[in-house]
Amino acid sequence: MSSPASSAAPMLAREMKAWVLDGPNELRLSTKPVPRPGPAEAVVRIGAVAVCGTDLEVIRDGPPALVAGGLPFNRNFTPGHEYMGTIAALGEGVDEFAVGERVAVEIHAGCGRCTRCREGMYTACVNYGLNYADHDKGHRANGFTTDGGFAQYALNHINTLVRVPHGMSDEEATLIVTAGTAIYGLDVLGGLIAGQSLVVTGPGAIGLMGVGMAKALGAGLVILSGTDRDRSRLEIGRTFGADEVVDASAEDAVQAVMRITRGKGVDYVLECSGAPNALNDAARMVSRGGRICLVAFTHGEAPVNVARLVSNNIYVFGIRGEGHSATRRAAALLAQARFPAKLLHTHTFAFDALPQAIRCAAERIGDPIKVVVKVDERHA
Amino acid sequence: MSSPASSAAPMLAREMKAWVLDGPNELRLSTKPVPRPGPAEAVVRIGAVAVCGTDLEVIRDGPPALVAGGLPFNRNFTPGHEYMGTIAALGEGVDEFAVGERVAVEIHAGCGRCTRCREGMYTACVNYGLNYADHDKGHRANGFTTDGGFAQYALNHINTLVRVPHGMSDEEATLIVTAGTAIYGLDVLGGLIAGQSLVVTGPGAIGLMGVGMAKALGAGLVILSGTDRDRSRLEIGRTFGADEVVDASAEDAVQAVMRITRGKGVDYVLECSGAPNALNDAARMVSRGGRICLVAFTHGEAPVNVARLVSNNIYVFGIRGEGHSATRRAAALLAQARFPAKLLHTHTFAFDALPQAIRCAAERIGDPIKVVVKVDERHA
Amino acid sequence: MSSPASSAAPMLAREMKAWVLDGPNELRLSTKPVPRPGPAEAVVRIGAVAVCGTDLEVIRDGPPALVAGGLPFNRNFTPGHEYMGTIAALGEGVDEFAVGERVAVEIHAGCGRCTRCREGMYTACVNYGLNYADHDKGHRANGFTTDGGFAQYALNHINTLVRVPHGMSDEEATLIVTAGTAIYGLDVLGGLIAGQSLVVTGPGAIGLMGVGMAKALGAGLVILSGTDRDRSRLEIGRTFGADEVVDASAEDAVQAVMRITRGKGVDYVLECSGAPNALNDAARMVSRGGRICLVAFTHGEAPVNVARLVSNNIYVFGIRGEGHSATRRAAALLAQARFPAKLLHTHTFAFDALPQAIRCAAERIGDPIKVVVKVDERHA
Amino acid sequence: MSSPASSAAPMLAREMKAWVLDGPNELRLSTKPVPRPGPAEAVVRIGAVAVCGTDLEVIRDGPPALVAGGLPFNRNFTPGHEYMGTIAALGEGVDEFAVGERVAVEIHAGCGRCTRCREGMYTACVNYGLNYADHDKGHRANGFTTDGGFAQYALNHINTLVRVPHGMSDEEATLIVTAGTAIYGLDVLGGLIAGQSLVVTGPGAIGLMGVGMAKALGAGLVILSGTDRDRSRLEIGRTFGADEVVDASAEDAVQAVMRITRGKGVDYVLECSGAPNALNDAARMVSRGGRICLVAFTHGEAPVNVARLVSNNIYVFGIRGEGHSATRRAAALLAQARFPAKLLHTHTFAFDALPQAIRCAAERIGDPIKVVVKVDERHA
Repeated sequence: MSSPASSAAPMLAREMKAWVLDGPNELRLSTKPVPRPGPAEAVVRIGAVAVCGTDLEVIRDGPPALVAGGLPFNRNFTPGHEYMGTIAALGEGVDEFAVGERVAVEIHAGCGRCTRCREGMYTACVNYGLNYADHDKGHRANGFTTDGGFAQYALNHINTLVRVPHGMSDEEATLIVTAGTAIYGLDVLGGLIAGQSLVVTGPGAIGLMGVGMAKALGAGLVILSGTDRDRSRLEIGRTFGADEVVDASAEDAVQAVMRITRGKGVDYVLECSGAPNALNDAARMVSRGGRICLVAFTHGEAPVNVARLVSNNIYVFGIRGEGHSATRRAAALLAQARFPAKLLHTHTFAFDALPQAIRCAAERIGDPIKVVVKVDERHA
Repeated sequence: MSSPASSAAPMLAREMKAWVLDGPNELRLSTKPVPRPGPAEAVVRIGAVAVCGTDLEVIRDGPPALVAGGLPFNRNFTPGHEYMGTIAALGEGVDEFAVGERVAVEIHAGCGRCTRCREGMYTACVNYGLNYADHDKGHRANGFTTDGGFAQYALNHINTLVRVPHGMSDEEATLIVTAGTAIYGLDVLGGLIAGQSLVVTGPGAIGLMGVGMAKALGAGLVILSGTDRDRSRLEIGRTFGADEVVDASAEDAVQAVMRITRGKGVDYVLECSGAPNALNDAARMVSRGGRICLVAFTHGEAPVNVARLVSNNIYVFGIRGEGHSATRRAAALLAQARFPAKLLHTHTFAFDALPQAIRCAAERIGDPIKVVVKVDERHA
Repeated sequence: MSSPASSAAPMLAREMKAWVLDGPNELRLSTKPVPRPGPAEAVVRIGAVAVCGTDLEVIRDGPPALVAGGLPFNRNFTPGHEYMGTIAALGEGVDEFAVGERVAVEIHAGCGRCTRCREGMYTACVNYGLNYADHDKGHRANGFTTDGGFAQYALNHINTLVRVPHGMSDEEATLIVTAGTAIYGLDVLGGLIAGQSLVVTGPGAIGLMGVGMAKALGAGLVILSGTDRDRSRLEIGRTFGADEVVDASAEDAVQAVMRITRGKGVDYVLECSGAPNALNDAARMVSRGGRICLVAFTHGEAPVNVARLVSNNIYVFGIRGEGHSATRRAAALLAQARFPAKLLHTHTFAFDALPQAIRCAAERIGDPIKVVVKVDERHA
Repeated sequence: MSSPASSAAPMLAREMKAWVLDGPNELRLSTKPVPRPGPAEAVVRIGAVAVCGTDLEVIRDGPPALVAGGLPFNRNFTPGHEYMGTIAALGEGVDEFAVGERVAVEIHAGCGRCTRCREGMYTACVNYGLNYADHDKGHRANGFTTDGGFAQYALNHINTLVRVPHGMSDEEATLIVTAGTAIYGLDVLGGLIAGQSLVVTGPGAIGLMGVGMAKALGAGLVILSGTDRDRSRLEIGRTFGADEVVDASAEDAVQAVMRITRGKGVDYVLECSGAPNALNDAARMVSRGGRICLVAFTHGEAPVNVARLVSNNIYVFGIRGEGHSATRRAAALLAQARFPAKLLHTHTFAFDALPQAIRCAAERIGDPIKVVVKVDERHA
């Protein structure tokens, strides 16, 4: 879908700095042509980009194995998907945004032509990863299957752009996509969760956003569970509004939930830990007819008591990404500043220091939650 | 909720024959008082009752362990839940049914006062099993927690009654509740499944009803999978409309589904096998964004690749029973006679021969699908 | 469903003061027996009760004409439905509440046995009003078809009770039911309305609650429209979070919405005005694919451009009451005190001064929004 | 989105015959270039095209006034939207279809970038009609805002194509889009309508398809209402499975529905008549909590008793077109041949005789239901 640069961006540079993959765990600072926007596309001049756990996997393993047969390890590929910046150029016919507007991004631009996209489930696009050569279906997942945000510019379908609320810093704006995943989880669990009870398992960035967003949406009881290595994160969970915090190193999490709810269990569990026993525990935390949303990737297989799901009429929703325009809802809620979301941002690195930023995140050096890389120092 | 017998049924007998539990696997033919209907209740004179796999468990293990703390093994309890008959008496104020009408039943009469009942999820009633003594919440699950259908009469909340369509035999009418479970599964999977693709795993009575009901509702491709011991059942599956039948003893079921769908997978899986690998297989049979309904109880824990559910945005619905008034829909569809549902009924026993009927079902003597006990020989 | 008073409330008085209807617009202070609770019921000692517009209609016209054939004008009937108080007695088997707890109420206790109740739509109970004599179906709508809250005690099904949050005054607690209607409207419109745009037409108590609740739930743009006689109410709307306020006496409301949204229209309209042009205007305020919830009763017929609904794929939801357990959600949101809901309470009268309270509300004497009658002066 | 013709269609002709509009009600047979497919597009060689009531309006009034400001009357525009044919050429990267496949069409190709498209409501695309010049948003509605099917070839987004089932004639295949509208209506009403009751008002092509599809989906009671001029259509309604047929010239339709349902009313109404009293009547035909789908366009304003919608919790769904991939479901159901859908096709004309075909439809000459124009005589 390439086309000549639109006249709306006459000054767009020809070349940019971009981090690229050479091989597993090998990132190199290189140069690439600045992308040109086609119809329904925009070029974003990147201001800041956060490091996510899945970035570490992409850098180590290549693009996700979702694509039939997997993709070969992708030399010259630019990872990074939690970025924000300003619109630098617009494709033909794009008037939904203007050059100069500050935007954050979400990851999934569905193909728009498969069964799932057509029913609004674009994060489950059947043509995921199919955007190459002669079978280009138009799907994009920047930082996963198409070039991402560890660079000065990125190409985005306008569906993946969301305006940054006034007064929000670049660093906080990189959290919008994280908040979007939490919102999508709460959406599939019930949408209107006001007055209902929720356990969030796993106090990572998404889990903490889940706590903050759930309380912002009026949830009744919100319980956050973690382990003793999560002490500082559990503390932030309290600040974000968790009514109860459970240290599963000290008390069995299921028992704690039953103690707190006087044996009733909760309406929902948002599973963000990826622990092997997570689904089983969640099924014991919810009341009969309860619902579980699986956000975290577990590795390998976990033993699951399927009969419990059946006999208690439990629904389990695996979600990928930030569907149902969740990032736009997330931006709206973050703009209302009901909890200090920016506490999630704990570390900052310069663009040239990306490898250090990644090491900080991977090895949890200095107890980071969100590590942010400033790409454009002039930005706020 | 007992009350004096209503004037609408002056002739109701005082005593009835009823099979009762003495201990694990010990059934004895005894006598009991005929129940009297309270408000919103009816007494059913039973015509026929089918034997279900869960009956065998109730007879062996006592009422289900759903109830907090479990229930003690229930001496003098009458099991049996797939029955039909005629209305023999009505409680005060009941004009929704008339004495003499032929009715089939569903199992769950929710308490009507818990969170789940109030949102219409009465099969997930939080007060399941709480219908005793001084904490009577009004819940009934005949044959599970309240006296069931291996008797001449049973007491039913009117919500659990469904009219038997004209011209349907007693034996076929006992299948309505089975069909109801299949319909509930198709309901939570999507409701409007016309033109969509479905795998049914496990050709038991519910699975076969799932095939017949799905085709009756206009499903596109329907694939039924079983093993070599299911040969006659798979054949019935074809008769019920299955487009493809997979013998998983001869070909890996997942590969067969991929072969048939040219690698696309299906929209839905209705899991009725209870096999240990069932959920994992189902997750590999559906396309991205697909949905799985778990109907069968597996024993113990099954290894599950949770990451697959997450990365493919798969939803999993555990269901218990026949919610959303599914038996009424089932009766309507069976009345339209689009497939020869009565083929599921393979064996018949007299009321006095219940133990033989149960042995036939438990030990699969003579390759039975549904074993039916005739309680009232005068019936059609 | 009467039964002897439970032992939990040995001191329940025999008689109480109650306002009763003699004829159209004739209220008289009388005495009645204090009701006794049956199973799943409680007796509430009333603390305060608010006057609602529909009370005025019940007092003038008798119970609503919903019931087939209408009901005769109801002598000795006690109206009043927006009340709160403390639990004075509990029916047999009720442990969901305890004597002495402070509760607010909602109106509709469905019969629990009709199609709608069974699917969770109890405010659309098919047996509405059928709770008399020999066809008692168990439906109750206190203040409409069963005795209400202009009395010292009332009988409530426990489904209609909601705990009053700690620290909330009696007067504010009477607003929970009003807030429940607003929440129910937002629920049917979309549930997760965070980040979406909404017009509320009509700044009465429900409309203002709609503004406050929508903002509490994270709505993006909220526009409130009224007329010049609503000036003080529009001001409260601003205090409750309305982003824009439209005085339709000065500017056409549809044009104002289009001006504010730059021609795009909004996602939702919550229609609380009952104006004759309200539905037509709402259909011009929403964007294509938008949704409208009708809360207010209009009188007579309104001209509607049906083709506009069709060609723009607009959905219209008429709602009655506070379905989907909305009052419980409302109480949870009010407890979070995100907006000064108590501003809606403008006038207070003593129990004996009910006629003056009603005149104040009916004739808008002193620009009232909510007029509250204190039944029990000892209350907070 | 024009691009060079793909290599997959080297033989595509340069010019074609096409009927074009000169002015209101002026159609002229002309020539036009054969369109070339861009990405995600195909060129269809048209086999047959049916005449729809809205064609008559487009021919008289120009494109629909949906677009802000309306569109000027469109000289050289080719109307016609209910067509079928064979794939003649495919755009780059299109492998979802193959050249030579027989396809039918639906109308709406959403822009894929607006709020509604993104949530799966592409028939409510906010960019409807915006596919011109420098603000091309990619929306297409062939026969309404982009060239349609009264021509030898048409350009279609692949989302608007559906395979014609084996053995279905060209004429019957033109009915797929009609059936799609009926299915979409049943979908928004409830999806799983098995066992539920429905009134269809107006026995035009969509109404009759509504009857056939509802019964095919297992609906319980289906009532069709019309007037005395609809006698032959009501007869077809019976053949399609209507349980009851009402001649509203002889008996008030609402009273007839109440007579048939013994005062209970029905669950759903599918309003296909466009009569001025249609919405009001529908609101009196449904039971409390019932739902109405508006399919037909009424002209001018109709008087509506809004209070009835509110007090009975009635939902009203205006729908446009065939959303939620309804044509694919429709094709699947028609392939199952449960009712003789082809009876709707009553008259056939040659391509050159389009004006006569239109006159036949407009003036109801010879009691037509569907008038079909054969574009390619070689077709089946």
